[in-house]
Amino acid sequence: MTRIYNFSAGPAALPEPVLRQAAEEMLDWHGVGCGVMEMSHRGKEFTSIVAQAEADLRELLAIPDNYRVLFLQGGATQQFAQIPMNLLAGGSADYLVTGTWSKKAYGEAKHLVGALGGAVRLAGSTETAGFTRLLRTEELDLDPRARYLHLCTNETIHGVELREVSRLPDTGVPLVADMSSHILSRPLDIGRYGLIYAGAQKNIGPSGLVVVIVREDLLGHASPVTPTIMDYRVMAENGSMLNTPPTYAIYIAGLVFRWLKAQGGLAAVEANNIAKSDLLYDFLDASDFYDNRVEHDSRSRMNIPFLLRDDALNDAFLAGAKAAGLTQLKGHKSVGGMRASIYNAMPLAGVQALVDYMRDFSARNG
Amino acid sequence: MTRIYNFSAGPAALPEPVLRQAAEEMLDWHGVGCGVMEMSHRGKEFTSIVAQAEADLRELLAIPDNYRVLFLQGGATQQFAQIPMNLLAGGSADYLVTGTWSKKAYGEAKHLVGALGGAVRLAGSTETAGFTRLLRTEELDLDPRARYLHLCTNETIHGVELREVSRLPDTGVPLVADMSSHILSRPLDIGRYGLIYAGAQKNIGPSGLVVVIVREDLLGHASPVTPTIMDYRVMAENGSMLNTPPTYAIYIAGLVFRWLKAQGGLAAVEANNIAKSDLLYDFLDASDFYDNRVEHDSRSRMNIPFLLRDDALNDAFLAGAKAAGLTQLKGHKSVGGMRASIYNAMPLAGVQALVDYMRDFSARNG
Repeated sequence: MTRIYNFSAGPAALPEPVLRQAAEEMLDWHGVGCGVMEMSHRGKEFTSIVAQAEADLRELLAIPDNYRVLFLQGGATQQFAQIPMNLLAGGSADYLVTGTWSKKAYGEAKHLVGALGGAVRLAGSTETAGFTRLLRTEELDLDPRARYLHLCTNETIHGVELREVSRLPDTGVPLVADMSSHILSRPLDIGRYGLIYAGAQKNIGPSGLVVVIVREDLLGHASPVTPTIMDYRVMAENGSMLNTPPTYAIYIAGLVFRWLKAQGGLAAVEANNIAKSDLLYDFLDASDFYDNRVEHDSRSRMNIPFLLRDDALNDAFLAGAKAAGLTQLKGHKSVGGMRASIYNAMPLAGVQALVDYMRDFSARNG
Repeated sequence: MTRIYNFSAGPAALPEPVLRQAAEEMLDWHGVGCGVMEMSHRGKEFTSIVAQAEADLRELLAIPDNYRVLFLQGGATQQFAQIPMNLLAGGSADYLVTGTWSKKAYGEAKHLVGALGGAVRLAGSTETAGFTRLLRTEELDLDPRARYLHLCTNETIHGVELREVSRLPDTGVPLVADMSSHILSRPLDIGRYGLIYAGAQKNIGPSGLVVVIVREDLLGHASPVTPTIMDYRVMAENGSMLNTPPTYAIYIAGLVFRWLKAQGGLAAVEANNIAKSDLLYDFLDASDFYDNRVEHDSRSRMNIPFLLRDDALNDAFLAGAKAAGLTQLKGHKSVGGMRASIYNAMPLAGVQALVDYMRDFSARNG
């Protein structure tokens, strides 16, 4: 078996030790005579798995006690609907649009606002700038009475990341952040947010799981239009188990959380992510052959899109990369070019192998 | 490693060959250098996995061409909301209540009907009969102009199963059936239904996946209240991939479908299920020590609840069973006693081991 370096934007590479343990435990978890996939979600075995997963996540992110952790289904896309259903409460919400994903969230809120009542405002957009940077303070039009301010802190497709939330004026409005593609990549000040959500399939585990971290005072305001299963309060009261949760995905997420702790926690993980992304950005910036167009202070450590100066070489680049064991480098169709997603599970050696290949390819084709 | 006989109602035992293959392929699927959990859902590898899973399911159930197969999230519980959101269209819907699950579906429709517009009717209930039998024709109050008639064809908690849909008068109203706990246990006349749904965690695969089989003319009637991700038409148009689907759960489901085909298809599977359930029911009916209170023509082949004549022996029964490698036999708290869930993956030898244990226990305690 030869494992490739998989640069997929998600579902994405998982840590090998996690996969090995999952394979070993597939038919028999801890000697109980069945695998995790076969366990009743109400039994003491699975209850211990989900409790440990939540405890480890709380430790990794230093989640304050007045926040609830929910393990839900439907991905970030379902959250795009669930957030206004639960939080709009007849008021107005602000949306920042800095890439494809925050634009989708804004679109879904607009789709539902007529039925929900209330209003949804565009409080700033970088669309005319091609989603190549963060919003500037003078571009913000924030409503201090908004129920919440929605943003996507890492735009997976455009490679734009907001790490310093202090760049946003603190109007006291709860921040609601889609962190799908960079959660757990560094320490985080959870207390600055009202609600954080993240589809699992990048830095957490398999697809089919979305983690929601929500401040308790935001629970209990769901519109009557809200399906019971989508009411955060109901799910919080039922420990995410009003119905059967995605048990196996939660188990894998728990193994990933333990792996992150074994790496030394999120400070160590961040140092590694800085080293990885610096390696690739420094190479890109020194090259005339490749180009990343995101402004320097807006660049993502997780998703690094780049273009070849000559588009006609794209297919040859991808074919050569695949032959070198470097896969899933094709950029999203909406932006073209290439994209390297280098989440936590991508080792520095993988980024080095990519840079070596890129240097060699440019030397042969420059 | 000793595998126990796991009688969990769900998540439930899976076929050992399926788990062995999943473990073997965890780090490297078919030599591509990464596991299924790590694959982009848009890549050709995963696209082939989902296409094969759908093709095998269509073959097993002989699904007509004018039905769409959707692989969704949120379980049957989310369907309880999604169905009226998509199908009510300002009209009236009939609900049959024959146990906990159909009662929940009816409750969720009532919860949402104010926001959706239209009406929801109780068209028959066996609640006063303790959910121990199917509805009788004279108990039905069917609206021939209803948008749909909802029923649960196998009540997991009460052990009541409707196999002969001809017991219901055919008024031309589309039947919408929750088949979570007995789908794939026998051949089925799909054409008799408008929509069938089934949470995966009994006869299909892991939790976190729900399969919907829907007649095409029922697509496209969603209320404006419907989140985009919950609109069947949108999901059908996007091949269940408007967003990232629960990829690993779909892969495991696909392995289960192949395993069912290798058993000889659903006719052979049904014969095995008849043998298994007959073995247990015949034993129960011959016993003075144990009791199943479901009427004979209403008994489920999948979920078999039973009581010990002396409740005080329950704990000893469960402890002895566990020591004998027979687990998850405790009945649902709402009905008490015991329950043996004997889905497709439970071999006849497992039911025989249960009967042997029950005979021995009654001899020692009778």
